[in-house]
Amino acid sequence: MDKYNLLDCTLRDGGYITQWNFGENTIKKVIKGMIDANLDFVECGYLNNKPYKEGSAIFNNIEQIGEFLPKNKKGSMLLAMADVTQFFPENITPYTGNSIEGIRVVFYKHQVEEALKLCRVIKEMGYKLFVQPMVTIDYSFDEYTELSKRIAQLQPYAVAIVDSFGYMIKEDFRRYFKILDNILGEEVLIGFHSHNNMQLAFITAQDILEYNTTRHLIIDASLYGMGRAAGNLNTELIANYYNTVLGKKYDTSIILDIISEIIMPISKEKKWGYSPYLLITALYQCHPNFACYLLEEHPDVTVSEFKEFVQRIPTEMKTKCRKPYVEELYKEFRQ
Amino acid sequence: MDKYNLLDCTLRDGGYITQWNFGENTIKKVIKGMIDANLDFVECGYLNNKPYKEGSAIFNNIEQIGEFLPKNKKGSMLLAMADVTQFFPENITPYTGNSIEGIRVVFYKHQVEEALKLCRVIKEMGYKLFVQPMVTIDYSFDEYTELSKRIAQLQPYAVAIVDSFGYMIKEDFRRYFKILDNILGEEVLIGFHSHNNMQLAFITAQDILEYNTTRHLIIDASLYGMGRAAGNLNTELIANYYNTVLGKKYDTSIILDIISEIIMPISKEKKWGYSPYLLITALYQCHPNFACYLLEEHPDVTVSEFKEFVQRIPTEMKTKCRKPYVEELYKEFRQ
Repeated sequence: MDKYNLLDCTLRDGGYITQWNFGENTIKKVIKGMIDANLDFVECGYLNNKPYKEGSAIFNNIEQIGEFLPKNKKGSMLLAMADVTQFFPENITPYTGNSIEGIRVVFYKHQVEEALKLCRVIKEMGYKLFVQPMVTIDYSFDEYTELSKRIAQLQPYAVAIVDSFGYMIKEDFRRYFKILDNILGEEVLIGFHSHNNMQLAFITAQDILEYNTTRHLIIDASLYGMGRAAGNLNTELIANYYNTVLGKKYDTSIILDIISEIIMPISKEKKWGYSPYLLITALYQCHPNFACYLLEEHPDVTVSEFKEFVQRIPTEMKTKCRKPYVEELYKEFRQ
Repeated sequence: MDKYNLLDCTLRDGGYITQWNFGENTIKKVIKGMIDANLDFVECGYLNNKPYKEGSAIFNNIEQIGEFLPKNKKGSMLLAMADVTQFFPENITPYTGNSIEGIRVVFYKHQVEEALKLCRVIKEMGYKLFVQPMVTIDYSFDEYTELSKRIAQLQPYAVAIVDSFGYMIKEDFRRYFKILDNILGEEVLIGFHSHNNMQLAFITAQDILEYNTTRHLIIDASLYGMGRAAGNLNTELIANYYNTVLGKKYDTSIILDIISEIIMPISKEKKWGYSPYLLITALYQCHPNFACYLLEEHPDVTVSEFKEFVQRIPTEMKTKCRKPYVEELYKEFRQ
């Protein structure tokens, strides 16, 4: 395995744009396309307890994902994500080789205990374990050190630094990386998951080339940056950059063809990507949905008004963004 | 003066989006806003030989620009750009202190001789001279060394590295910077003008902080990245970043208010910013207008088709993009 590795998460994080209703053919095409383009890791969707809806990238069980995968996985490792609140340990079936090889577990800071339980079962069932503590910057360095030690005991395959709301600058990533790098066994990979609220995703992905470490690394990206709000690092951009400076062999022509066929038609209907509203949520360290939900209902709220509005969000509510709450707060704001 | 300086070029490079028809009030508001936000340099528009059209940021003479400027320029230096083919030396009136303080001269590689003539007159007339050789990457290192020596003799105020088509990676900027840094007098500033075809503009702006140099630097940006095709570095992003890591005092609140009032309404009518089409023009080192012109006439050309089309452009035509030629080439391509 190379030191630098790319993970495409279009079907998972890009799914916020389509409510994961990609359709069976599209899911198959994206997975096969990413494999053919030599992506190192491909995330195929979410795992969830709820009944399966045809054509969705939210799967009800692990074996089901197997039906969407080509026989020949070439050099790619296929994964799915399990949110600790959405997929229970008892639903994990043992690894058979007929479906995904690894599971990425996401959780907020207040969900650490349940998350570690889920992680343990994933390991026991024979899967490669990827641990993704969301909003990494929410952890103080001491808390993160503590968490990293507990995660290390699980012998994970990889642990990621996750900039859920897109406001970690490259210096922040470096600091959390140092903690992980000191604590994790040398065989554990470290991942980077970023968002583009401040157009910083690509910068992090370039900056890791300067790290003084021998550790193997994983960078998350999605096709055309498809993802909620400001979206993700663009797979086509980072693949091309790593080809240029590292001599990697990602097939950007295949990547562009998949974008052409699958992603461009979606982008004509639904929008994602940087906007000043999303910069403002990042500046005030809020969930980007404060912008998305508010503009859905009130598309005429100006950038200046939004800047005032965001400053009214109580600190404890900044990362807890629910639609009715945004509406309520906005009504108060207008009075 | 600080080592790191920001230049807002919204009224000039953003003008491609509005054909520079901003209207008198808008021009005044943007200039005053950028001064109030503590931008170090503000580019007010183009200079041109043609008769003036009311409300345009393409000015017919230097004194005219003075009418748009507030009395108190605080810490900002105000500038305009002269394209060597658009504004002749005989139209430059002597510096009086009532208008702009400096002129930025842009030219292609085949226009060096005329450009240097224009530069000389600008100096003689008492203006600060900014030299901007477009498509810097078109020059071999030897050619660039030669050019830099000739420019140095003019005793310019600043010389910029210009990534006109958005395909210079940060390593490219570093190489051209080294040449300039070795040749120019220590008092000469070096500038960076980039475009976002590969979403690299912000990366260059962060990377210059790592340069091993004592030289003073200028980074070009525009509000919300407003500019032709993929657009420019975003003033709001780089201002915030420099505030965070350098302790600069750009007023991002004023910057966001100007974006809110002036730029957002324009962005609802006209689009700019990264797209896979513009990545493709960069990948094949073509003028981004190959994408803009083609999609204007044929909005249904897919990314895959465009990738094939671009590969048919003869090398010598890649940077020479005129609308009828694009149309002609596309007709051939469809046959």
